[in-house]
Amino acid sequence: MFFEGSEKKAEIFIESNHLSLLSDIDDSFWHNLVNAGSAQILSSISNEHCKAFILSESSLFVWHDHFLILTCGVTQLIKSIEYFIKHIGQENIVDCSYQRKNEYYANAQLSSFGDDIKILSQYIRGSALRFGEIDGHHNYYFYKNKSKITNRAKAYELIAYQVNSKVLRKLSSEVLTFRDIRKFLQLDVLFPQFILDDFVFKPHGYSVNGLFKDKYFTIHITPQVNSSYISFAANLDLIALLPLILSILQPVSFDLLSTNELHFEQHVQQQIPSNYVSKTLVKETLNNNNLMYFANYILPQSEFSNANHFNLIEDNHAL
Amino acid sequence: MFFEGSEKKAEIFIESNHLSLLSDIDDSFWHNLVNAGSAQILSSISNEHCKAFILSESSLFVWHDHFLILTCGVTQLIKSIEYFIKHIGQENIVDCSYQRKNEYYANAQLSSFGDDIKILSQYIRGSALRFGEIDGHHNYYFYKNKSKITNRAKAYELIAYQVNSKVLRKLSSEVLTFRDIRKFLQLDVLFPQFILDDFVFKPHGYSVNGLFKDKYFTIHITPQVNSSYISFAANLDLIALLPLILSILQPVSFDLLSTNELHFEQHVQQQIPSNYVSKTLVKETLNNNNLMYFANYILPQSEFSNANHFNLIEDNHAL
Repeated sequence: MFFEGSEKKAEIFIESNHLSLLSDIDDSFWHNLVNAGSAQILSSISNEHCKAFILSESSLFVWHDHFLILTCGVTQLIKSIEYFIKHIGQENIVDCSYQRKNEYYANAQLSSFGDDIKILSQYIRGSALRFGEIDGHHNYYFYKNKSKITNRAKAYELIAYQVNSKVLRKLSSEVLTFRDIRKFLQLDVLFPQFILDDFVFKPHGYSVNGLFKDKYFTIHITPQVNSSYISFAANLDLIALLPLILSILQPVSFDLLSTNELHFEQHVQQQIPSNYVSKTLVKETLNNNNLMYFANYILPQSEFSNANHFNLIEDNHAL
Repeated sequence: MFFEGSEKKAEIFIESNHLSLLSDIDDSFWHNLVNAGSAQILSSISNEHCKAFILSESSLFVWHDHFLILTCGVTQLIKSIEYFIKHIGQENIVDCSYQRKNEYYANAQLSSFGDDIKILSQYIRGSALRFGEIDGHHNYYFYKNKSKITNRAKAYELIAYQVNSKVLRKLSSEVLTFRDIRKFLQLDVLFPQFILDDFVFKPHGYSVNGLFKDKYFTIHITPQVNSSYISFAANLDLIALLPLILSILQPVSFDLLSTNELHFEQHVQQQIPSNYVSKTLVKETLNNNNLMYFANYILPQSEFSNANHFNLIEDNHAL
C-alpha cells in the first residue's frame, strides 16, 4: 500500500514579549490546530525548552516563542497554519517559513504549493523559491519578508530514498516493537541522552521525536518498498551523523537541507562516502540573511533491475 | 511561462487484413481523434509508408496497420484512444501500448495514469508497469496481454532535461525561423534524406516530424529555462546519434527508452560520454516477448547554483 511520506513543513516565530508563551498554551489549542490540517496528536514529551508531539502524520514541536510542524500524507498543513494565524493574530508573527517537498503523487494532494502560498500571502508578505530542478528532488520554500529573525538557529534535514530492500523488509515487519526499531536505527548511538517518544504504525511506519536540553530531532519512516522515504529533521548536526545513517539505511539517493550551516560545503565533502555523487547542489542566501543549502546525492547504478509492477489497488493514492 | 513537455504516448495495431487500411481513412477521422484529446492537427507530410501529422501538442504517425500518437501539455490522450477504439472496434485491435512519462506538475493534469488505464481496461486486457523509481524519472507503461504482435520493430526515445542555458536562450529566441532551428539541431547530419515537417510555436517551442522510406523521427522542444524538455522518438537507432545530440544540447540529465534493441547495454556503454553516470537502469521482457530498456543518466554537479525564484504567475500550471 502506497503512503506519501513527503512532508510539508512550517516554522513560525511570535514576538517573544507576546503576552502568552506558546509553550503555555493549553494542549487543546494544538490538538485543534493539528486537526485543522486533518491530522491528530498521538502522544507527547517535553522538557524545559520544548514540548514535542507525535502526530498521526509526523510531528509538532512547540518552544516558548516558535513552533515547528511537519505533516505528510495528504494532510493540509496550510489549514493548520491558517488556524494558528487567525488565533494568534498575524501582527504577532515575526517570522514564518513554509516548505513543501515534491511529492511522489502530486496529483493525489488536495492542494499545490502555489495554492498554499496564495492562502498564506493573504496574511504574510513573503518570497518563494524552489531548491532543486523540477525534474528531480526539490523543495518549495516560502518565507516572510522583513523578518525580525535574521539569524535562525542552525537546522538540518536528511531524507533517504530507495532504502536498501533488506532494511525495508526489516522495517516493514509487522511484529517489530519500538525497541527493535530504536536498536536497528542505533538511536542510542546517534542521539545519546535524548528522551524519546515513538510510535509504531500498523501495518507499517514509525515516528520518533527526541529532546535533549535545547536540541530536538525527529525521524519518520515510510518503509514501503516501492515508495520508501525516511526523513530526519533536527537542530543538531545531521551531516556529522551521515556516515552512520547511510551505513544503516544504504539508500540509493538522499537529500540534505540546511539552514545557517556555514561550513556545509567542506562538511559534506568530508562526511559523504565517495561512492555517492552529487546530482543537485543549491546554495542561497535569503533576503532575511539566512543561508540555505540543498543537495541531492545518488549512488550510480551499474546493474539493470526489472520494471515495477503497477497495481491499480496498491497505487490507489495515484488515482 | 511554464509548459508541460512530458508526453503521453500510445501505439495501436489493427488486424492487417482489416477491411480498410488506417492510412486510407479520411483525414477528418484523425482530426476528430486528435480533437477528442484536446489537441489539433497543424500540418502533415506523407510517403508510401506513413502519414505524419504535427499536432498543437506533439505528433501523430499513421501507417497501414498501426498508428503512434504523442501528446504533451494537459491534453487527454486517453480520450483520443477511446475515440479510436469506439470507431474501429475493440475486436480489431491486435496490439496496444499506452505510456506516460512522469510530469513536472502532475497535479495540473486532468487525469493520472491510473485513471487512464481504468478507462483503457474497459476495452483492452493488459498489464501495467513502471520503468524507473517514483522519486526519479519514470515511465508508466500499459500494454495489451496476448498481443498478436510479439516482436515489434525497434523503437527509441531520448529525452533531454536541464539543457544548457545558452542552448535554451538560443532556442527561445522569438526571431528564430524553422531553418535556424534545423541548422542548430544539425538535422541534416542527424537525419539525412528525411523529408521534414516542422512548426515553430509562439513565443517558444518547436516540433518536427521526419520521414524517409519506412523510418520516422520526431522531436519536440520545450525551451523554457526552468522546465526545459526536449524529446526525440524514432524507429531508427537514436543511441548511435547520442554523442552528437548530447554535444548540441548539453543536458544535465537524459532518459533513454528502447523497444527490442537487443544490444542496448553494450551500445550505451560505447556511445555515452564518460562524464555522464547512470542513475536508473531498467530492463524488462514483457509478457508479449518485447524487450524494453529504460535508463536515466546525469551529469554530476560540482558547483553550487542559486535557488530558483518561484513565481505564482509563471508557475500557473502548478496551481
